[in-house]
Amino acid sequence: MNGCLFCKIVKGEIPSKKVYEDSNTLAFLDINPANPGHTLVMPKKHAENIFDVEEDSLKSTISIVKEMAAAVKEKMNAAGVNVVQNNGKYAGQLVNHVHFHVIPRFENDNVIISYKRVQLTEKELDDVAKKLLQKQPAKRVDDWDLSGL
Amino acid sequence: MNGCLFCKIVKGEIPSKKVYEDSNTLAFLDINPANPGHTLVMPKKHAENIFDVEEDSLKSTISIVKEMAAAVKEKMNAAGVNVVQNNGKYAGQLVNHVHFHVIPRFENDNVIISYKRVQLTEKELDDVAKKLLQKQPAKRVDDWDLSGL
Repeated sequence: MNGCLFCKIVKGEIPSKKVYEDSNTLAFLDINPANPGHTLVMPKKHAENIFDVEEDSLKSTISIVKEMAAAVKEKMNAAGVNVVQNNGKYAGQLVNHVHFHVIPRFENDNVIISYKRVQLTEKELDDVAKKLLQKQPAKRVDDWDLSGL
Repeated sequence: MNGCLFCKIVKGEIPSKKVYEDSNTLAFLDINPANPGHTLVMPKKHAENIFDVEEDSLKSTISIVKEMAAAVKEKMNAAGVNVVQNNGKYAGQLVNHVHFHVIPRFENDNVIISYKRVQLTEKELDDVAKKLLQKQPAKRVDDWDLSGL
């Protein structure tokens, strides 16, 4: 898309430190990493976020996220790896081209992923579950288990 | 797997607030949510983390992550959505059965995903990129672009 920073990286109009590339997917280093080895993985085809990305494009991307997570863990000797994908500015999305952060983690590093847990009653949880309930594929409608609701 | 909390949820041995289920994938509410609507999506088949999960299982799961992200945004009137997948205790993984957090976000909520960015020189970035460089599929070896390295 015109004006999209990550589309410019895909086209080579802006340089990047590429670590993986195929016809669908590009992975490159975040130049302001949380830890060294922090990698971004994204579909080349522009989509703003997880809501807009085509399913095939998303599936190709997550395969490379898996591959890069393993590489990051091994090559950076990481103790763990976070995969983070942000949608919308209030979720911390800075570039509106869907991408996954693959972040190597180390004991006592500076990365914080935390929240104060919200206390909900059983009734409130049930109400949320009813709102979010998605239909299962029609072929399995007979064994859809509603016992938890 | 014996002793796995999420395998017990899959089997119905421990109750959960299910919001989606098919033969491969289960989505249910986090009972200690970051925000109301915080949903966990996982493959039913046990795998500890993204390193161990089978690729097909991961692809099925990410499709439902996309579906649940859209549902969470719409039904909870969220301003944004984070998708977070933690691997290893130093990455904040609490249950060793691979899962994605789908977290609705609101302006001025209590969720913090932040880090002090590490400053790396061009040379240091190049060294990391060389460590992490993954082979592209053999069929495209001719057009592998190393110009960014």
